[in-house]
Amino acid sequence: MSVNQTPRPDCSHPADEHAFLTLTMIRNIRLDIEYDGTAYCGWQRQENGRSIQQVLEEAIAVITKSPVALHGSGRTDAGVHALNQTANFQTTVTAHMVAFHRGLNSILPRDIVIKRATEVGPEFHARYSAKSKTYRYVVLNRDTPAALERHCCWFIPQPLALADMRACLPQITGRRDFASFRSAGSSNINPVRTVFQAELDVVDGGRIIFTFTADGFLRHMIRNLVGTIVAVGRKKLTAEDFPAIFAGCDRALAGPRAPAQGLFLVEVHY
Amino acid sequence: MSVNQTPRPDCSHPADEHAFLTLTMIRNIRLDIEYDGTAYCGWQRQENGRSIQQVLEEAIAVITKSPVALHGSGRTDAGVHALNQTANFQTTVTAHMVAFHRGLNSILPRDIVIKRATEVGPEFHARYSAKSKTYRYVVLNRDTPAALERHCCWFIPQPLALADMRACLPQITGRRDFASFRSAGSSNINPVRTVFQAELDVVDGGRIIFTFTADGFLRHMIRNLVGTIVAVGRKKLTAEDFPAIFAGCDRALAGPRAPAQGLFLVEVHY
Repeated sequence: MSVNQTPRPDCSHPADEHAFLTLTMIRNIRLDIEYDGTAYCGWQRQENGRSIQQVLEEAIAVITKSPVALHGSGRTDAGVHALNQTANFQTTVTAHMVAFHRGLNSILPRDIVIKRATEVGPEFHARYSAKSKTYRYVVLNRDTPAALERHCCWFIPQPLALADMRACLPQITGRRDFASFRSAGSSNINPVRTVFQAELDVVDGGRIIFTFTADGFLRHMIRNLVGTIVAVGRKKLTAEDFPAIFAGCDRALAGPRAPAQGLFLVEVHY
Repeated sequence: MSVNQTPRPDCSHPADEHAFLTLTMIRNIRLDIEYDGTAYCGWQRQENGRSIQQVLEEAIAVITKSPVALHGSGRTDAGVHALNQTANFQTTVTAHMVAFHRGLNSILPRDIVIKRATEVGPEFHARYSAKSKTYRYVVLNRDTPAALERHCCWFIPQPLALADMRACLPQITGRRDFASFRSAGSSNINPVRTVFQAELDVVDGGRIIFTFTADGFLRHMIRNLVGTIVAVGRKKLTAEDFPAIFAGCDRALAGPRAPAQGLFLVEVHY
């Protein structure tokens, strides 16, 4: 930990000096955050619209009484949710973590909740320390939309061929070039990623739950993958098309992008 | 079915006459409805506030082009949700059920969804034909509130003694006088009900799911039962207090009322 070495002019006896040193110690705070992304323009601060990062930075600043820069593990798009987004920031405030955690939740809007606030070593960085991430995508496949989960799933009334969709999954895992599944405008980034897990579970009431874990994801990669698998389920593409889609490295070969509201950041692994 | 016998003055040949008779046949339509109760003052029409019944009656009237009276299986309070509320209404409109169902969903707000619309016999009445109902109540028992399910559970951060709570359940099932678990102001109704099912399941993430099935429920009965069971879980009462609470027939003996937003009407059985 780094310590501000400038002596305080009116620091007259050892107890005061100790308090001063404690106050100016830089602490690295990790936050684990759940949010409902419905009302926000996404994680990242933007000129137009209220972002989750902005709301959090403003709330933290109320408690720490100075501006902070909050580093998220990565962006989530407008309407995407998080069960556990991870972020960190540095502060010199000495507040006890339990009090800080409670205070922060008490001033945040109810659609953003700090699940844990912990002091971590100075080497921890929510983005650069992340080893992998797990996302979930929820499709609601039944005749009518959901009233209760309307902001938390992609409603698809047409029948879906589940066996065909499942046949896509082994073709996604492993180290691959995902250029065909990234959004236009992100072409300057290395498109090779390793997907450790690509699963599909069917649960009660017509819910199809996708789970993806990878060492990283390109912009819109999961939504483009889900949109392509659903296109296979709707017989617009086949699982046998996947090798050619990967080989072509062309976004136009894959299926359409699935909507944001079905996507959840489940966990960032360190 | 009753038929309007008044002849149409300009009805000149048999085909027209047949069309006219079809138009004036009274049809009994059953609706199965999912709703998010968060934004409403409850099921029942009220002077102050927007009710689910009112929104549905107005939407149906847009399609049938005449006012309708919608009969629900029973009231739900402000903030209470339904996975399947049942209602029925009578109409002379001849619209095909599939077209009527789609049209109605297309004009309803997204927090109210018609899951099924079916023509039923004239004897069916959503309230009087109901044999039993199943409700669910969701408690979120963890350190921090939920961002995503904030309108759909009762958040309780304190530890709960689950074994003690489970010991209450067999004392609820059977034919009993539930006067101690009904709200003040409903004392003119016979308080004897038969509870067929009173269960508690613990699922991932600290969710405690109660399921109750009975031939009927008194006003606030489930919320008062859940509040009392939670009081046992918090060691304010014990499971051994239940016989005396029942025997006393006094609302003051039971625990506090659980909040509305954890309650879901799951199914009405006919």
